[in-house]
Amino acid sequence: MIGHTCFDNDPWTLPENRFEIDLLPHTESLFALSNGHIGWRGILDEGEPHGLPGTYLNGVHELHPLPYAEAGYGYPESGQTVINVTNGKIIRLLVDDEPFDVRYGTLVSHKRVLDLRAGVLRRDVVWTSPTGRTVRIRSTRLISLTQRAIAAVRYEVEPLDGPARISLVSELVANEELPHRHNDPRAAAMLENPLVSDLHAVGKTRITLVHTVRHSGLRVAAAMDHTVELLSEHEGEWNDPEALDVRVDSEPDLGRCLVSGVVQPHQTVRLTKFVAHGWSASRSLPAMRDQVDAALAAAHYGGWDALCAEQADCLGEFWSRADVEIEGDAEIQQAVRFALFQLVQSARRAEQRAIPAKGLTGNGYDGHAFWDTESFVLQVLTYIDPQPVAHALRWRHSTLPDARERAAQLGLNGCAFPWRTITGQECSAYWPAGTAAFHVNADIADAVIRYLRVTGDVEFAHGEGMELLVETARLWHSLGHMDEAGDFRINGVTGPDEYSAIVDNNIYTNLMAQQNMLVAAEVVAHHPEHARKLGVAAEEAEAWREAADAMFIPYDELRDVHPQSDGFTDHEMWDFAGTPPEHYPLLLQYPYFQLYRKQVVKQADLVLALQMRSEMFTLDEKQRDFDYYEPLTVRDSSLSACSQAVIAAEVGCGRLAYDYLAEAALMDIDDLERNTSDGLHLASLAGSWIALVSGFGGMRHTDAGLSFSPQLPEGWTRLCFGLVLGDGRLRVDVRTDGVTYEYTGKGPLEVRHGDTLMQLEPGTSETQPLSPPKQRPAPPQPAGRQPARRAHDAVRVSV
Amino acid sequence: MIGHTCFDNDPWTLPENRFEIDLLPHTESLFALSNGHIGWRGILDEGEPHGLPGTYLNGVHELHPLPYAEAGYGYPESGQTVINVTNGKIIRLLVDDEPFDVRYGTLVSHKRVLDLRAGVLRRDVVWTSPTGRTVRIRSTRLISLTQRAIAAVRYEVEPLDGPARISLVSELVANEELPHRHNDPRAAAMLENPLVSDLHAVGKTRITLVHTVRHSGLRVAAAMDHTVELLSEHEGEWNDPEALDVRVDSEPDLGRCLVSGVVQPHQTVRLTKFVAHGWSASRSLPAMRDQVDAALAAAHYGGWDALCAEQADCLGEFWSRADVEIEGDAEIQQAVRFALFQLVQSARRAEQRAIPAKGLTGNGYDGHAFWDTESFVLQVLTYIDPQPVAHALRWRHSTLPDARERAAQLGLNGCAFPWRTITGQECSAYWPAGTAAFHVNADIADAVIRYLRVTGDVEFAHGEGMELLVETARLWHSLGHMDEAGDFRINGVTGPDEYSAIVDNNIYTNLMAQQNMLVAAEVVAHHPEHARKLGVAAEEAEAWREAADAMFIPYDELRDVHPQSDGFTDHEMWDFAGTPPEHYPLLLQYPYFQLYRKQVVKQADLVLALQMRSEMFTLDEKQRDFDYYEPLTVRDSSLSACSQAVIAAEVGCGRLAYDYLAEAALMDIDDLERNTSDGLHLASLAGSWIALVSGFGGMRHTDAGLSFSPQLPEGWTRLCFGLVLGDGRLRVDVRTDGVTYEYTGKGPLEVRHGDTLMQLEPGTSETQPLSPPKQRPAPPQPAGRQPARRAHDAVRVSV
Repeated sequence: MIGHTCFDNDPWTLPENRFEIDLLPHTESLFALSNGHIGWRGILDEGEPHGLPGTYLNGVHELHPLPYAEAGYGYPESGQTVINVTNGKIIRLLVDDEPFDVRYGTLVSHKRVLDLRAGVLRRDVVWTSPTGRTVRIRSTRLISLTQRAIAAVRYEVEPLDGPARISLVSELVANEELPHRHNDPRAAAMLENPLVSDLHAVGKTRITLVHTVRHSGLRVAAAMDHTVELLSEHEGEWNDPEALDVRVDSEPDLGRCLVSGVVQPHQTVRLTKFVAHGWSASRSLPAMRDQVDAALAAAHYGGWDALCAEQADCLGEFWSRADVEIEGDAEIQQAVRFALFQLVQSARRAEQRAIPAKGLTGNGYDGHAFWDTESFVLQVLTYIDPQPVAHALRWRHSTLPDARERAAQLGLNGCAFPWRTITGQECSAYWPAGTAAFHVNADIADAVIRYLRVTGDVEFAHGEGMELLVETARLWHSLGHMDEAGDFRINGVTGPDEYSAIVDNNIYTNLMAQQNMLVAAEVVAHHPEHARKLGVAAEEAEAWREAADAMFIPYDELRDVHPQSDGFTDHEMWDFAGTPPEHYPLLLQYPYFQLYRKQVVKQADLVLALQMRSEMFTLDEKQRDFDYYEPLTVRDSSLSACSQAVIAAEVGCGRLAYDYLAEAALMDIDDLERNTSDGLHLASLAGSWIALVSGFGGMRHTDAGLSFSPQLPEGWTRLCFGLVLGDGRLRVDVRTDGVTYEYTGKGPLEVRHGDTLMQLEPGTSETQPLSPPKQRPAPPQPAGRQPARRAHDAVRVSV
Repeated sequence: MIGHTCFDNDPWTLPENRFEIDLLPHTESLFALSNGHIGWRGILDEGEPHGLPGTYLNGVHELHPLPYAEAGYGYPESGQTVINVTNGKIIRLLVDDEPFDVRYGTLVSHKRVLDLRAGVLRRDVVWTSPTGRTVRIRSTRLISLTQRAIAAVRYEVEPLDGPARISLVSELVANEELPHRHNDPRAAAMLENPLVSDLHAVGKTRITLVHTVRHSGLRVAAAMDHTVELLSEHEGEWNDPEALDVRVDSEPDLGRCLVSGVVQPHQTVRLTKFVAHGWSASRSLPAMRDQVDAALAAAHYGGWDALCAEQADCLGEFWSRADVEIEGDAEIQQAVRFALFQLVQSARRAEQRAIPAKGLTGNGYDGHAFWDTESFVLQVLTYIDPQPVAHALRWRHSTLPDARERAAQLGLNGCAFPWRTITGQECSAYWPAGTAAFHVNADIADAVIRYLRVTGDVEFAHGEGMELLVETARLWHSLGHMDEAGDFRINGVTGPDEYSAIVDNNIYTNLMAQQNMLVAAEVVAHHPEHARKLGVAAEEAEAWREAADAMFIPYDELRDVHPQSDGFTDHEMWDFAGTPPEHYPLLLQYPYFQLYRKQVVKQADLVLALQMRSEMFTLDEKQRDFDYYEPLTVRDSSLSACSQAVIAAEVGCGRLAYDYLAEAALMDIDDLERNTSDGLHLASLAGSWIALVSGFGGMRHTDAGLSFSPQLPEGWTRLCFGLVLGDGRLRVDVRTDGVTYEYTGKGPLEVRHGDTLMQLEPGTSETQPLSPPKQRPAPPQPAGRQPARRAHDAVRVSV
């Protein structure tokens, strides 16, 4: 249990039950607020102490050269790193000249709560200053899901034991000093003072700062405005606002609003701070200034209460269709709602920008987006919040020019999407685990296919969707080759498992490429006119179909399992017994050379294929393959547990599935990989839903339709989840005595429950018996690499 | 023909027949002098114009960090680069205040000759200054093979058409300005002003400079002394030396000796300059100063004539045993002697330092040594100049502590020698083509085995030789694994072909490792007491033998050829037809990703196995394999042509073998890879001997003994070569009418001629009929990648 005990269980909030300075880096990520456009880490209002200050704008990055001691053709030369932009979070407090700082004086109580329905972070502190004055401080922070440019903070101070001279300094600060980067290659590069001032301006209670990012040339603007109130005991009643002195000033990198006055006990100073953020690669300085000032004026005009009401409405609507209800497990109930809240935060207003691996909650992985977005985050959002999915896929589409150029540079047709990027250009400096991981292209296609299958969005199918499918199909066709025996082989690529690289016929890659080419051919056939615009002749689509039909899937007859890739099962076994627990993650303790050539799996790869192309394997094969790969899979990646949960559930290892679900769901709340401080693991958060819905719900959604094979973890009495299917909604309510499918929508819906095909009519529900799979003994995991929750069985008992 | 026409054919010299400034970078490498300890590029005496100034001391290097945009465990962090040390070559001339510079005035004649028997570079120039005075300038430069620290220049100026005021400035200069490095990843990094002055001192005609290399901390010392003469028409007769004014001065980075006077026609000013170089990682400043001053005094005392006589004697002795005589091909005759001269220069006084890939003739590859040393250079020297071989192997032995540490870091037993290094530490920053190329360890073992087989050096067998064999055998045993079927497999390594990487069961690697383990076990069995000191128990040696016996050698039954490594022959073919000539070398135009996953071979790999482990393949297999790999092999490496020559000759493609021989032999003289300016390709130079002796001589030397199957290229009437075999010498004289084996030595020698086993008695000779293999059609090469000489058939006709 790494820190979990600092949160209480609550179905609709994440309440911190004790305050530890050492946990700040971790809680800053958990309490991060975002709308997909703006991201604020959950820093204390007063700015320090802190782990990592972080204010991010989706897409705002700095460039830096990528160095190579030995250069190579086609190596990307320019890196991109998310940067900390102008910070509008800070409100410093002085009580009788003593700065409020949790490290000094006495912290009588300190409570923070992330409210998953209100969409705000609340804080309630009672603090006695070093000179003995006790005050209550309450703050509420939100980033608006409805007003994309707007964040706001309400900050209240009430002296409890006598009059106090209260000063508040609300800041807007650029080029904050940041902690030094650490050596873990996964942590982000940080760049010093990237913002060059263009303008600073003050109004009555407003300050605007505009900067240009030094090398990338992006222009970022931030503005803040304030409402100041002095409240009497009965909240909301005016009590001489003139008693407070308000001043503003600005410098190139700093804007301040200073509020001061003497406050009596049972009076409350309330500062409401509105902050607007904006950026552009092309708009002028005056345009950017106007943009943030106007957004600010609109928010200020609507006021705090309206902002909060809109936020709650927006989330209410989200929860009404997306909520997952669990009975019998308060901890997982809380975790999955936290996960869905963070997913919606990361994506809702991203609007044709990437959804980075860590959302806008930290600078881990340099703020890059990977395949995580399409394969994990969008997989979930497609069923619960499809609109941002269309936006995210349109973002990918907008990067096609870069991806086409990259493909051409690599000597390939179609497009080659980057392994890691902010803008669409490849930023991976280690090609065996970057460029070679071509599966990202099939993963994007898979997200397109899923989106089309679920939403039936015809406009997208004609347009961006088809182009994405066509260009990725072209890539695969040029990447593989038909051999003399008539097998289509894809050689020299890297699959999801990053402990193997540059392999032939990675099964996951081959099967995903197969689907990619098949569906591309199908979509082209359905929309021939639009296909013609993309220059797709019938012969080209036929060639994709042929390649897909001939796709080579290696099989190890000797061991009767699927090798992850050609020859994998002939490799030497990793010496798991000789690997001490502190040597994980292995990539920090062993050279790639050793990892690549031995049987050790970083993350689900063949097992991910069993999930994503479920229909291509028999249950028997899945059982044998799962049993083979479990003892090899060390889960040094957060992109693994959920897939292992899904297949464990399917092959009758329910308890193991539960443990993997718990690991995925509690990855960040429990800081299981000890790096949540760099930002949340969005894919793992998405994985908790996948483990629940595809794992315990047994949902599969293929060309053949939608099916469920529900089961309940031991001790649970209910699992209920909702899906958005085009205009319709389906709620699946799994209870010990049966599974109820409740459907609303326009036309009938075909759904399979186990072997039973149901025809659901709109407005009706149907109940089927719960028939969980026969349970069998779970295969072992490498020593010490059992699902993280296993170690905490004692804790589980109390749930 | 790239510049070859600037040399005349001559059996014992390399005479430049025209002077082109653009060719300076090329000729500086060809005319480089070295003794293995000191290396001087063939810069013009007056220092400029130049391509690349270069004065090198074997082992003297600077350190620099190796940058990685994405770090990884076990990546080397510190790079080593050879540096340009204090330059003592320069003698500037002023004629009536006009500086002699080939770019100004009129160059009436300019001739340079590298004399392969005298071991000197001679220059003879007639120049008319811009003001109209004509002078003859003659210089002779040598680096002593007998006095390791000493180089010398004799410089003579004679006015031809009237009296001239002659000034000579002899320099010793540190931190010369160097040209900017270019972008080719193979070219060396250059480091600015690496030398920090410790001392500069002047004597009567002597100057000493001592410096420390900034980061590596090595101390380098250089001193020069001079003899000045004014000769009358009859050379050697004094004519008033007092007429010349001689001054010396020094600064931290510069020492000068200025000689001036008025010289009459038919008088000659002669400046003889002796230069001593030394370096140390540990010795003090006074010790280093004394070291060079003392060496200088000794050379000065002996004088120029003695130095030249020693040099000629030393080379005379060398040629008496090592010469290769060819009748019917003046060009190859010259080229092979040039090659052997450069080999002996590179190695003779290296004395427990590395022999870099480019010797001391340029800064290409940062001055690093690779497997080239053992596999090519030492392969040849073992048979013609074995003493430097023992030294070179002792150098490897001296790096065992680093190699053991590296093995441990990689999780392996024994030692892991570096892919590229100056001091013994791994400097390769791209592990798939560096660290993973473990074959370097078997190549070192192979050189040990060959040295022991040829010399019978018992002391070395007991000592360094055994330890090298044992530690490399330990590496292989830990690197491979015995699979369930009882095959010993070596996975995830890179073979010689750098257009494949991280492959399983590279046949070359597996066969070389097999030999390594077998011979290690054998040597251990022969010297049990010495083996015990290395902690080798009988079981350990038995385990090596078992692994060697079980070594897995993949075979492609479908195509009936050996795959270079597992699955290689299943890969897609490279699109040779679609690859234009200007896209070679491919690594500068295509990503590794594409190269690795397709059937395209940079350099002999499986074909090298056919040569190095000849006895493991039938002639039939060799033919099929050669036919398969020829159309795939693009020879983007200079380490390929000689092996292709050897196998081409064996399988009955004599004309093709001849063309590969010519490519290897003329690699540098013709500048075939257009990078001779970075330094000579020592391995290719060695390859010319290999192509002649192992190719046309058909020499194989295995555990089973020494054998020959001679043949002559079309048009040749004779090929005669000598071998040093322990105390004995063998000369093999191949003529059209028979092959004569002439043996001198102590005991009888068993030699196989084709299928005939001969017992040669000392002092006798035996003649056998010449029975060349049946000729068959040669397989094709990739379009445009035929042996370089093929394009020049017209020229060949005239030979």
